[in-house]
Amino acid sequence: MTAEVIAVGTELLLGDILNTNARYLARELAKIGVNVYFQTVVGDNRARLLDAYKAAFGRADIVIATGGLGPTEDDLTKETAAEYFGLDLELHEPSWEKIRGIFRNMHSNMSLTNKKQAMMPKGCVILENDNGTAPGCCIEKDGKLLFLLPGPPNECVPMYEHTVAPILKPRSGAVLASKTLKICGIGESQAEEMLKDLIDTQKNPTIAPYAKTSEVWFRITASGAGEAEAHAAMNPVLEEVRRRFGENIYGEDDDTLEGAVVKALLDKGLTIACAESCTGGALTSKLVDCPGVSAALLEGAVTYSNEAKMKRLGVKAETLEKYGAVSAQTASEMAAGIARTSGADVGVSTTGIAGPDGGTPEKPVGLVYVGLCVKGEVSALELHLTGNREKVRTRTVVTALDSLRRALAKV
Amino acid sequence: MTAEVIAVGTELLLGDILNTNARYLARELAKIGVNVYFQTVVGDNRARLLDAYKAAFGRADIVIATGGLGPTEDDLTKETAAEYFGLDLELHEPSWEKIRGIFRNMHSNMSLTNKKQAMMPKGCVILENDNGTAPGCCIEKDGKLLFLLPGPPNECVPMYEHTVAPILKPRSGAVLASKTLKICGIGESQAEEMLKDLIDTQKNPTIAPYAKTSEVWFRITASGAGEAEAHAAMNPVLEEVRRRFGENIYGEDDDTLEGAVVKALLDKGLTIACAESCTGGALTSKLVDCPGVSAALLEGAVTYSNEAKMKRLGVKAETLEKYGAVSAQTASEMAAGIARTSGADVGVSTTGIAGPDGGTPEKPVGLVYVGLCVKGEVSALELHLTGNREKVRTRTVVTALDSLRRALAKV
Repeated sequence: MTAEVIAVGTELLLGDILNTNARYLARELAKIGVNVYFQTVVGDNRARLLDAYKAAFGRADIVIATGGLGPTEDDLTKETAAEYFGLDLELHEPSWEKIRGIFRNMHSNMSLTNKKQAMMPKGCVILENDNGTAPGCCIEKDGKLLFLLPGPPNECVPMYEHTVAPILKPRSGAVLASKTLKICGIGESQAEEMLKDLIDTQKNPTIAPYAKTSEVWFRITASGAGEAEAHAAMNPVLEEVRRRFGENIYGEDDDTLEGAVVKALLDKGLTIACAESCTGGALTSKLVDCPGVSAALLEGAVTYSNEAKMKRLGVKAETLEKYGAVSAQTASEMAAGIARTSGADVGVSTTGIAGPDGGTPEKPVGLVYVGLCVKGEVSALELHLTGNREKVRTRTVVTALDSLRRALAKV
Repeated sequence: MTAEVIAVGTELLLGDILNTNARYLARELAKIGVNVYFQTVVGDNRARLLDAYKAAFGRADIVIATGGLGPTEDDLTKETAAEYFGLDLELHEPSWEKIRGIFRNMHSNMSLTNKKQAMMPKGCVILENDNGTAPGCCIEKDGKLLFLLPGPPNECVPMYEHTVAPILKPRSGAVLASKTLKICGIGESQAEEMLKDLIDTQKNPTIAPYAKTSEVWFRITASGAGEAEAHAAMNPVLEEVRRRFGENIYGEDDDTLEGAVVKALLDKGLTIACAESCTGGALTSKLVDCPGVSAALLEGAVTYSNEAKMKRLGVKAETLEKYGAVSAQTASEMAAGIARTSGADVGVSTTGIAGPDGGTPEKPVGLVYVGLCVKGEVSALELHLTGNREKVRTRTVVTALDSLRRALAKV
């Protein structure tokens, strides 16, 4: 089964916004075994939109168009689709009533042009929009299937999920099973090398590597006639990949590294505090991303200056003088200091040179230390990171989280 | 002048990566007055790639294709382009030498397939790649112009900038002048309402609004036969928009809100310290994004628990008991406390309910307070924010930065 995605909107052609809908739809369609060979972006223009429909339906039986369902004269996706299929538009009363209700609730003035959003191609299936005024629709004619979805991702994504996927899934012959394993602490090329024999001979399942900042993910995808068959094809390879990476795997699918750290802290009833220099609060902020963290996180301190490191964390003046602020010794004293002053079981610290300035031949940009103090046991990790200021800081946060995860596994 | 962008790569069709190149190229082409009416994504497949070239050159004289210049058999963009134009491939010695040099420097084994990257369509102009092994090229034939650029954005973007733009710019008739004004503190619809008369009658320049999280940007773009003419068309409207928004404008083009705050601090010789609860370090981290901030930022404290608020910042137990952790009183004491204990001229604090849990009828999710202490003068701002946990935290950071910016303007 083959589909195409047409994203409609001048703002896409001007590069004002990223085409995240196309990426989302492509990924979701792949999951249910629908092939996508072309994606197109076209502006709000009748003739060019008509050309895009013709070209897409010349190659595929299913087309999903996003965007251009708004109330203004520029919005032509639905009107042009009706023209392409030779259908009239007619008022869909329930949609019109719903639009009027939305405006009533917002105590906002509705312009009569909003009625345009409720004018639907005759005989289409209405796809309800729970997050906006524009309903979507599905037109089926002459063996062709066209879905029209609104452009804003927060409307497009739930509409696909709740209405399009349930229509397409049973029509697609294949069922796919897929699992992503997330790895930290092994470089991309080394990780791929470790799976080379599996990747070189892969057929079903396939193994796709994704390099993230200081992480590598592998997605294992298998197809089969049914759920059970797909899983049976996937599971042996999944187990083998799990075996090879062992404790380097921090999670699966939607798991996050910070989530793994917070889960370990909560599971073991441990508290944590952070002392950050070069990461400037980004490490603590990652932990705070996890709901429920308040039971574990006692405090974070951004001690950017030497004075703050001494005053706030009790880093010794001699240490700063002898070894410098960017050193294993300072990182260790920072971690121990934040644990002691906050009363936390675990202290973690970062200090380094994120750039673009501040590097020296002995301590170049990218030199970073992560300090850990776990129940009184202090250690420091030396990192040599590449990339610009932002990358160095991100890599530091990821590495600090991974160090925490590994240390907590041993407590 | 009309161009099309073809992004080549199965990973795009599978939704594994976002098509950031298309967005970048679209924006850059718009800047130099080149129209883009279609963008296409196609996989690494000879027949479909050939179709994509045919379709694109049927509509435009210039095509920019990205991706598929790698060393593997899957990479067919260049080979298919040569086939489309009826050109042979021949070894480009300087490129081959360069590739060999890169592998020598990396002390890495080169596979002979890398030679494929130096095989170029006969008669093309080589576009040097300073950031990778794959050279790009420009093929001109029968009035058609095809650019082949590598897929990784860190290779594609500089190659466009250094080689493609200088070729296209003089061929494009129009010159565009463009300026983005960045506004914080006014809602999107109110901001658009303030410019309604200008937007409704716009022609040259055009005014395009962009809604960001708690910000609104307006891009004013004018075209003319030359730089002077374009600027002459743009400037009166630019001045009028500046006049209408006044101090709500925090910057232009690449300016950031945190950059405006840090600049104000450095200009006035003031130091700052942050006490964060619901933002969990994200505010301090934003300030640390700005190089040079170390002269102004003394310290950040993430005081997530009541105990840390008392111990670290000296928030009174009575205050927490009487008004709660999420209150104007606590925000004020936090801001004053971090200023006092760090010795900073300016203290800023955040406390609120980011969700998803923790809300009550009196204090719902989205209730946030920002505290300021500027040279001893303490104030607090009450916010009612919408969105999920991440949005509430982001909006809090933006609002805190904007409050700082406005307060610093008065010092």
